Amino acid sequence: MTSRTVETFLSPALFEPEKCRGTIVVIIDILRATSSICTAFANGARAIIPVSEAAEARNYKAQGCLVAAERDGFVLDFADFGNSPFNFTKEKIKDNTVVYSTTNGTGIINMALQAKPAAIVTGSFLNISALVRWIERHNGNVNLFCAGWKKRFNLEDTVFAGAVAERLIKTGGYSTSCDSTHAAMDLWLAAKNDLRSYIEKAAQRSRLREKQLDDCIDFCLQHDFTAFVPVFMNGRLVGVES
Amino acid sequence: MTSRTVETFLSPALFEPEKCRGTIVVIIDILRATSSICTAFANGARAIIPVSEAAEARNYKAQGCLVAAERDGFVLDFADFGNSPFNFTKEKIKDNTVVYSTTNGTGIINMALQAKPAAIVTGSFLNISALVRWIERHNGNVNLFCAGWKKRFNLEDTVFAGAVAERLIKTGGYSTSCDSTHAAMDLWLAAKNDLRSYIEKAAQRSRLREKQLDDCIDFCLQHDFTAFVPVFMNGRLVGVES
Repeated sequence: MTSRTVETFLSPALFEPEKCRGTIVVIIDILRATSSICTAFANGARAIIPVSEAAEARNYKAQGCLVAAERDGFVLDFADFGNSPFNFTKEKIKDNTVVYSTTNGTGIINMALQAKPAAIVTGSFLNISALVRWIERHNGNVNLFCAGWKKRFNLEDTVFAGAVAERLIKTGGYSTSCDSTHAAMDLWLAAKNDLRSYIEKAAQRSRLREKQLDDCIDFCLQHDFTAFVPVFMNGRLVGVES
Repeated sequence: MTSRTVETFLSPALFEPEKCRGTIVVIIDILRATSSICTAFANGARAIIPVSEAAEARNYKAQGCLVAAERDGFVLDFADFGNSPFNFTKEKIKDNTVVYSTTNGTGIINMALQAKPAAIVTGSFLNISALVRWIERHNGNVNLFCAGWKKRFNLEDTVFAGAVAERLIKTGGYSTSCDSTHAAMDLWLAAKNDLRSYIEKAAQRSRLREKQLDDCIDFCLQHDFTAFVPVFMNGRLVGVES
């Protein structure tokens, strides 16, 4: 078997679309978009339509859609709710389609789409084992795409990328010659024994605390809350059990 | 004393010029530009003129200047020599001014200059203690600017940034709330006990090996070969003892 490769973009500013063609791109925005997306499918959402621009989300709302939209942690005034995974309750979203727009995470789905990958999926600690199973079944090179924060590097997305890369390399027959992936794995190694304490120093941890939006962090750092993998198909994410 | 801050740009793609105004910017390109610049001053160079473009270096050569110029590891045909620290010998450069152009390192000096910092200095393991002393005496916020490789993140510049940040925070009264700096320090912690082995996995390590240009790596990773700090003044770097 030819070894498959795993590479990592540590921020949208480091994205290299030419590397993504024909590969599996994993979108990562741990605090909070991709954790919320996983939660939505765990709670029975039919589909999620990720949109980059707030104006686009507002148009969907005007058409009567259920809309989750946030900038810098705050719910946009026209939206039904914001970006906490605790907003995506069974009561609100079971069998519903949700239009979703966030500061960092949803925009990079559209960036990845332009690069013509074989597949786009979203990852979080909440579905990490299911995600790795899905990737290993789909037999392709992988690009891990960290949303970061306003084009900056962040710790929480990077350590998650490292956790995925470690599993793919240890058990999935993958290899890497990418410095970003090596760094992500070494940071995961530093973080894994006490992930909650490690994330204490992350800037996004402080931002959420200042806005009293940090109640969901412990939830977002737990492993394997769901076996759903959000897969992008025909303009929307759907939950595939894995 | 108000705490001074240290932040890190892990690649030119992550550079934020607006953060650099009035600060000390440390240029980092361990393999090999900033290691070679330190070596040049240790060997008596009068000044180094960093230029971004090969054409500019060629013009200087036409005017009779001593020129070091390299792209992707190879010496440009018009240049006197390339980018290995072993090229910057006493015989060639003592009391001379050298025009210098490299793939990554020299270009970011000019990027930093546009941001109107208080000072631009270059760092490498070869002058790390002198660099930290110089910074601590100059009492300013610090931005560590990693050259990376063709706008990508790299390991060797990042672990050096982490080594500098660790010293500034432990003994220099500095603090950070920057995820990139935290990551760099954690990677330095992973690397420091056996830096040579750690750098084995760096992509630039492989690139230099393939081109048989890796003879200088052990040299570039040694600490405190020189007490000179290259400081940018009036269009050129000069060596300041510290």
